[in-house]
Amino acid sequence: MAAEMPQWVKDLKPSEPQGTDLLAQERNKSKVNSAQLSVFLHGKEALERKNRILKVLQAEPVFNKDNDYFDGRVDKWEKGLARSKRLTTIAFQNNWNDLDRRVANDLISEPLPYGLHEGMYLVTLRGQGTPEQQEKYLKPAEAYRHIGCYAQTELGHGSNVRGLETTATWNADDKTFTIHSPHLTASKWWIGSLGRTANHACVMAQLIINGKPYGPHPFIVPIRDLKTHQLLPNIYAGDIGPKVGYNTMDNGFLLFNKVKVPHDAMLARFSAVDPKTSKYIRPASPALVYGTLTWVRSTIVLQSGSTLARGVTIATRYLAVRRQFQDRDAPQWEKGENQTLNYTMVQARLLPLLAATYALHFTGKGMMNLYEANQKNMQKKVTDQNSKRSAGPEETTPGSDLLADLHGTSCGLKSLCSSTAAEGLEVCRRAMGGHGYSAFAGVGSWYADYLPTVTWEGDNYMLTQQVARYLLKSARSVLKGNEPNNDTTEILSFYLKRQDTGAAFDILGKDDDIVAAFAWRSAYFTFEALRARDEEKKSWNSLLVAFYNLSRAHSQYLVVKNFYETLHHASSSSSSETTLDPETLTLLHKLFRLYALHTLVSESSEFFTSAACTVAQIRLARTKTVMQLLEEIRPHAVRLVDAWDFPDWQLNSSLGRYDGKVYEDMFHRAAQLNPLNSKVVDPYPDSPVLYRNDDTTRYANILKGGKAKL
Amino acid sequence: MAAEMPQWVKDLKPSEPQGTDLLAQERNKSKVNSAQLSVFLHGKEALERKNRILKVLQAEPVFNKDNDYFDGRVDKWEKGLARSKRLTTIAFQNNWNDLDRRVANDLISEPLPYGLHEGMYLVTLRGQGTPEQQEKYLKPAEAYRHIGCYAQTELGHGSNVRGLETTATWNADDKTFTIHSPHLTASKWWIGSLGRTANHACVMAQLIINGKPYGPHPFIVPIRDLKTHQLLPNIYAGDIGPKVGYNTMDNGFLLFNKVKVPHDAMLARFSAVDPKTSKYIRPASPALVYGTLTWVRSTIVLQSGSTLARGVTIATRYLAVRRQFQDRDAPQWEKGENQTLNYTMVQARLLPLLAATYALHFTGKGMMNLYEANQKNMQKKVTDQNSKRSAGPEETTPGSDLLADLHGTSCGLKSLCSSTAAEGLEVCRRAMGGHGYSAFAGVGSWYADYLPTVTWEGDNYMLTQQVARYLLKSARSVLKGNEPNNDTTEILSFYLKRQDTGAAFDILGKDDDIVAAFAWRSAYFTFEALRARDEEKKSWNSLLVAFYNLSRAHSQYLVVKNFYETLHHASSSSSSETTLDPETLTLLHKLFRLYALHTLVSESSEFFTSAACTVAQIRLARTKTVMQLLEEIRPHAVRLVDAWDFPDWQLNSSLGRYDGKVYEDMFHRAAQLNPLNSKVVDPYPDSPVLYRNDDTTRYANILKGGKAKL
Repeated sequence: MAAEMPQWVKDLKPSEPQGTDLLAQERNKSKVNSAQLSVFLHGKEALERKNRILKVLQAEPVFNKDNDYFDGRVDKWEKGLARSKRLTTIAFQNNWNDLDRRVANDLISEPLPYGLHEGMYLVTLRGQGTPEQQEKYLKPAEAYRHIGCYAQTELGHGSNVRGLETTATWNADDKTFTIHSPHLTASKWWIGSLGRTANHACVMAQLIINGKPYGPHPFIVPIRDLKTHQLLPNIYAGDIGPKVGYNTMDNGFLLFNKVKVPHDAMLARFSAVDPKTSKYIRPASPALVYGTLTWVRSTIVLQSGSTLARGVTIATRYLAVRRQFQDRDAPQWEKGENQTLNYTMVQARLLPLLAATYALHFTGKGMMNLYEANQKNMQKKVTDQNSKRSAGPEETTPGSDLLADLHGTSCGLKSLCSSTAAEGLEVCRRAMGGHGYSAFAGVGSWYADYLPTVTWEGDNYMLTQQVARYLLKSARSVLKGNEPNNDTTEILSFYLKRQDTGAAFDILGKDDDIVAAFAWRSAYFTFEALRARDEEKKSWNSLLVAFYNLSRAHSQYLVVKNFYETLHHASSSSSSETTLDPETLTLLHKLFRLYALHTLVSESSEFFTSAACTVAQIRLARTKTVMQLLEEIRPHAVRLVDAWDFPDWQLNSSLGRYDGKVYEDMFHRAAQLNPLNSKVVDPYPDSPVLYRNDDTTRYANILKGGKAKL
Repeated sequence: MAAEMPQWVKDLKPSEPQGTDLLAQERNKSKVNSAQLSVFLHGKEALERKNRILKVLQAEPVFNKDNDYFDGRVDKWEKGLARSKRLTTIAFQNNWNDLDRRVANDLISEPLPYGLHEGMYLVTLRGQGTPEQQEKYLKPAEAYRHIGCYAQTELGHGSNVRGLETTATWNADDKTFTIHSPHLTASKWWIGSLGRTANHACVMAQLIINGKPYGPHPFIVPIRDLKTHQLLPNIYAGDIGPKVGYNTMDNGFLLFNKVKVPHDAMLARFSAVDPKTSKYIRPASPALVYGTLTWVRSTIVLQSGSTLARGVTIATRYLAVRRQFQDRDAPQWEKGENQTLNYTMVQARLLPLLAATYALHFTGKGMMNLYEANQKNMQKKVTDQNSKRSAGPEETTPGSDLLADLHGTSCGLKSLCSSTAAEGLEVCRRAMGGHGYSAFAGVGSWYADYLPTVTWEGDNYMLTQQVARYLLKSARSVLKGNEPNNDTTEILSFYLKRQDTGAAFDILGKDDDIVAAFAWRSAYFTFEALRARDEEKKSWNSLLVAFYNLSRAHSQYLVVKNFYETLHHASSSSSSETTLDPETLTLLHKLFRLYALHTLVSESSEFFTSAACTVAQIRLARTKTVMQLLEEIRPHAVRLVDAWDFPDWQLNSSLGRYDGKVYEDMFHRAAQLNPLNSKVVDPYPDSPVLYRNDDTTRYANILKGGKAKL
């Protein structure tokens, strides 16, 4: 595309040493078994699946990523739709199951216009539709005749679902519902796949029967003609415009002007309107719906580790190739510049994040296990209870104790882990200096696409109120003298018993004492918050900052505990998939300590306030232990990121290439792929054209001083 | 562009209460005199200038911002070039001076392709060219026949200027220099205005005479033909591709294959090659060059306050309009949702940033005053010294003590203030929840364009080494018993005298004690770092994290001090431009305390470690004082951001509109300006076209399974 490249440019190489040699040296000087560690992280089966899917995708031209970073908004979305279509076709052709498709999406690494059809519309129909509704709506949706979306959020209403304005009014006379948007703020907004793609929407609307509101319920509403794809009458919808990221997706808006839908439009598995009596039939088990939100949050926790690991992989490899300045204390004869990764200021930013990728990943796995265990438990209880069902909806929610624990845990971890991943990615990007700002680094767009995660499925600040509520409730139970029935009540009880004798945790000597110190701090601030709320009678609003800090403290405890327990289990495991050689295991223990002590130092005022450790311990951790851990982990950094096993195709990053050919790749993309280099400019202010070889008239009149609108 | 809007949609209004009414209430309930405060911040003359320039720009269609958020990379840059051209023309027509043009650039608020021609090329020629060189190079550049750029950074070399690879070898035989790029990594990179626009470059290259290197020097090199704008022979240049932001600018790369330039290509005001003897003539005064870097950093400090204020203005207005949930403790009969700005968790994020905008702005003004005072002082010393010039280049740099202070201060503040602004903008964006992620919020692109500031003109981490070096040097001088000669040595001396009696600062009672506590902490960590380096002989590399923290501590002291002194001066001022009514001044004192105490709480472990205050004081600050300040400042938040006086045209934000018509504006942009809504999609996976009304064949073959490359 650019001016033809002269031979003398083609002959140029980077100055010595080459990136390839530097990364080879890095891999040679560490004995970490990356392949074994990959299996430990992901499992053999998942690694094989990934490679199988990768081959299929790489053979498809529509998934070629070479030009992705150059696309404007419309181009991005068009390519996204083409990719959605093709992906669906090859998934059918290859008989891919859901897991295969998730892996394909991971490898493609961008949100696609069918995303919400598959991720929410089908899921909702399966979960909340009756068999008849599934026949009518799910079948065509599975065949991609109906393309759906999930329309909940409104222009004026986000997290507060009860505040939604869209109404669904029951018409007893003709057995229909009227869906209506009474105000502009009632417009559905942010709805993925709605903007251009969907022809159906699952709409959350306030159910109204005989003038009485019954809260938000889901309704299936056709919005575009199946043949012409034009908007149906009294429906107005479109794309909401460009965003910080996520521009491959058509997030949309949607307004209704008294649109009638039949009785079966309301998904009726859990609650319904009796068409004969016009009576509301109450939900059988709100706990099951509750469970879905928990599942969504758990998957966010699970993905946070690998999300961050992409940035850490790119930055670690690049900073091992990048060289800058000489070590100030190095002898004169050491002339070469120093690898950037050798500077402690770089290590102090990057290596704790490397440790965090493992910490979050293990926590996510622990969270999923907890979810699945609870799910089984709950299903059992529901079955037991249904068989003796009699009481009204105010009866105790089945399995509510376990569910409350799971709910609190998933809210706190979703908040902590997604914030850690998002903010960590930006730290990685900045640690790479100037080149981190290039689109070719591959971190900026990944970060921008990930950002909504800190807001959706419960804003990361709002969610912490749920955690606080759960912890306060647990603390009240413990104070009443109830026996501990889970880990939370156990650490609270332990604290209560010991609070008059104090703590003496050997945080620099024993790993399990680190975990105990985190638990102590969480318990201390739980009781402090309880005192403020129950004894000092402080307003809920005045405690929100304290609750946020409490949630953070408790969730950090959970991450540290999960990391510790994973390693503890690995030492005693005999399964080949969960075994690590002693050297690698020792290194992971160092990563554990780095994550935990780096966190402890960052939050040191809470640790000394709660007397979970002494000021001297914090000082030693900051000035000695953490610095020493950085030094010990540094030689293994490249192998530790290699274990994440990201294919270059997935990362699409000049700086994060496995082979270290950083500068060659940057230059190739800039000089040979960049469309801006195809035109010859007319640079003078008094000339009304922009290009010499492509006389754009678009600006000519304006540049002559004309007043026509662009 | 979208499907025609039906009448029923046009009739819709946001639900009550309207944003306009909410903002009017906010303005009514505070008595802060925003107009007076605007004058205090900016001065009358600057406000008038802004309004005068704004009118001219608003009348020019090329500066219409309506479609900016929809543009792809190439569109953005094209519009940027058209804007650069038109701006230059109207600047000539209106006889605008440099200040007028800077104001115009501020209002346009995006980097433009002539930016580096004006900001660096002209400036370098004026500063470093001889009269003959100015005749030859500066004149055509001022007439925009030469469009230039400043080519320093290379693909493999950023901050370490001494590591640059590009060479300029002196040819004694024909009195020329040969400019050459020996490796791919020698390619100039990131050079603003170079990619497509410039036909000249000021190239930093290693001067070599008789095989001996003399370090980097500036050379003027023609790179494109003045008539055809084609690359000149043996030059290869182009745009480096898309970036996280800054995409209206053509940052470029540039390679040389033994390109000869005449003797006068080397800018020779400060150093030169004698063409007769081939001898190197040493720089007259490196301090002057040093001074330029300090000036650039000082302007970054000055701009950081208003940079952040844009985000704070947008977020504050929006969060006063946005309502969500009811207050948990509110009585049942209070049915309406609560303004988001009323939640303490929102206030705790946003209001300290509001305080920071004032803190950074006053600090920037202080920094510029310091710079100008020093500049005068230095000019005088240079004049004095030149009259008795005799010693070699190793003589003491003129004014080096003052300059070292200014250098240290500007490095530390550049790092702290630009990081505060960048990170604060992202906090503002996230505080706005979902809508903050929309391009129409106007914060995402502003943040993305600002991000390079934390990396360029000295990476914010690297720079802190300069601060530490300066503080260590000052501490050594104080330890030797030298009398304090500036503020830094004064606070170090005070600490030394008092360290055996300790400190007792009444940080919650007296404002000047807050300043003193920040000074104490800075001094404490200076001597701790000195002990580690000089007594414990720790390596420089092992201390980088401590140096970073030290620089941060010292710079926070400087900001707190500048804020305090500005208010102190305002109380005693009699000038109308620097007078504030007592109520407003009292409020600014609260902002001062909020900034200082919020910072103190965030860094509490350093304050108690240094015994600058007690644990009890920190606890009170955290749980009581800061919370109370938030409550007291909250009612004035909207008026306090109004005082920044950003025209809506400049902010280009749906959420930050002065009139509060947030939802109307979001909807208008999405539904009526958004080009993605112009086409009707074919949504089915088995159909090979994307659109029904515009049958794009681009993807057809690929969607049928063809293997052609896109």
